[in-house]
Amino acid sequence: MIRIFITGGTFDKTYDEIRGRLTFDDTHLPEMLRLGRSRVKVTIRTLLMVDSLDMTAAERELIVRSCAECEEPRIVITHGTDTMVETARDVAAGVTGKTIVLTGAMIPYAFGSSDGLFNLGSALSFAQVLPNGVYIAMNGQHFAWDKVRKNKETGVFESV
Amino acid sequence: MIRIFITGGTFDKTYDEIRGRLTFDDTHLPEMLRLGRSRVKVTIRTLLMVDSLDMTAAERELIVRSCAECEEPRIVITHGTDTMVETARDVAAGVTGKTIVLTGAMIPYAFGSSDGLFNLGSALSFAQVLPNGVYIAMNGQHFAWDKVRKNKETGVFESV
Amino acid sequence: MIRIFITGGTFDKTYDEIRGRLTFDDTHLPEMLRLGRSRVKVTIRTLLMVDSLDMTAAERELIVRSCAECEEPRIVITHGTDTMVETARDVAAGVTGKTIVLTGAMIPYAFGSSDGLFNLGSALSFAQVLPNGVYIAMNGQHFAWDKVRKNKETGVFESV
Amino acid sequence: MIRIFITGGTFDKTYDEIRGRLTFDDTHLPEMLRLGRSRVKVTIRTLLMVDSLDMTAAERELIVRSCAECEEPRIVITHGTDTMVETARDVAAGVTGKTIVLTGAMIPYAFGSSDGLFNLGSALSFAQVLPNGVYIAMNGQHFAWDKVRKNKETGVFESV
Repeated sequence: MIRIFITGGTFDKTYDEIRGRLTFDDTHLPEMLRLGRSRVKVTIRTLLMVDSLDMTAAERELIVRSCAECEEPRIVITHGTDTMVETARDVAAGVTGKTIVLTGAMIPYAFGSSDGLFNLGSALSFAQVLPNGVYIAMNGQHFAWDKVRKNKETGVFESV
Repeated sequence: MIRIFITGGTFDKTYDEIRGRLTFDDTHLPEMLRLGRSRVKVTIRTLLMVDSLDMTAAERELIVRSCAECEEPRIVITHGTDTMVETARDVAAGVTGKTIVLTGAMIPYAFGSSDGLFNLGSALSFAQVLPNGVYIAMNGQHFAWDKVRKNKETGVFESV
Repeated sequence: MIRIFITGGTFDKTYDEIRGRLTFDDTHLPEMLRLGRSRVKVTIRTLLMVDSLDMTAAERELIVRSCAECEEPRIVITHGTDTMVETARDVAAGVTGKTIVLTGAMIPYAFGSSDGLFNLGSALSFAQVLPNGVYIAMNGQHFAWDKVRKNKETGVFESV
Repeated sequence: MIRIFITGGTFDKTYDEIRGRLTFDDTHLPEMLRLGRSRVKVTIRTLLMVDSLDMTAAERELIVRSCAECEEPRIVITHGTDTMVETARDVAAGVTGKTIVLTGAMIPYAFGSSDGLFNLGSALSFAQVLPNGVYIAMNGQHFAWDKVRKNKETGVFESV
């Protein structure tokens, strides 16, 4: 059983057709898992629904606490890419004895041509087999939380 | 570096709009990797482009030989789901010392609403971290080659 | 108020993921109209759900009779492209005093990348403004029923 | 031959994956026409690439002048929905003897699930058969320029 915590990010951005701008509504995760015909046993809980650039210290603390307190030893967190590395660092500082994988998307799932479905399949798979630790799964790769940065120019996660 | 061998299957079925029926053309793998923003280093080679129900013993032997002879120790094979387990068994009998992951799709990628992108992210991830052996990655899960069957009624891969 | 008669054709082909082949299930028309945010008042009725190559004389007669007997003076018929011209001829022989537009698709709507949504918008628009007569609306164009043929090589409808 | 003038609007909004926000890049019109298998003879020219809420008087004047000066008597204009009615009024005041149809979308085409393809098929069809005048084609319907308003609450164009 894998716990999935939703925090928002590009993954879940949607288009508000009345106001003509990006917004957050409900998470697309259940629909994505259905589309992927996923048979992985998961429990989904939405913690936040925010752009990660707007994430506050209190919200980040909520993520850490939720990871520490849930029963499942394997966790996937969907998260905006801009501050994913910061949250991973906080989670690593506050949680031990679990396999925690943060993932996200560069293109909203609602746009149809998203990397989100690919990343979700990847993150769920890494979460099942990696040893205890905090990781980022993006672009088909995985990185230990303290060995990665997002290249702001290219949008790609790379080793440091 | 991961070697990807293409053999066809639902993954790569496309619609022939002149004749109004399903057919095979070129593989969609490079486009899918681009869509997934994959940064995994891969070498892609198309071995076959067939419905796995039509796969001959000689074709299956080609897959086994290609896995044994290629330099890469980590391999992903895209394959029709109907006889994926049979091919996995042959590969397990003929190749040792490598991590080999077979994957496929229930819905053609060209249909837009495919499980293929999810499975591809999953298979590439499992191929990077699982120990030597032959596996099937479907529905977000992985199975050892001799511990799985496809349920023909539901289309789901399940443990045996 | 426009009457829409469904007869199947590529428009409504879907993918049977258990058997791995094309099939017909329910029509996608209501979903397509919702996606197109259509506000045209329509009444939809499914007459048939067949590949037009398999359409019998009795089925074609059902289409003609349905057009003649319905109250609405403006009708759109979704139809497979292969024998669309034959059905249009029969309808023209059997129905007068109405504007009837046949349309179809080269790619199933369920494939995502379909010409069906474009053709549906086109056919509904022609049906609202063309004078009485029987027409085929394909590729953004309209043709009188006796001035058109489908080019079997290119899949394109052209004037004769 | 139909002239198509591009001015931007939701039709052509795209997602900037580095900055995480909506933006304009090149028009999607040629791709949409290809997807729709359109065989209508068109000449496409991009006049503007703006959100119609930001359209200036000078830009609107450019649209009017372009309609008046081009050779084609039948014109389609893609336009943001928020001020489409205002532009239609200016075009009606400045151009005579042509059939001019403005159209747009509530959802960006790049999002996959767009009404744009439906509206484009509709607008091109109305442009071929309506008498001289300035019209708005949205939601499968057409309206004379002075008989329509956009309902800001519902996003739907309705008769006045």
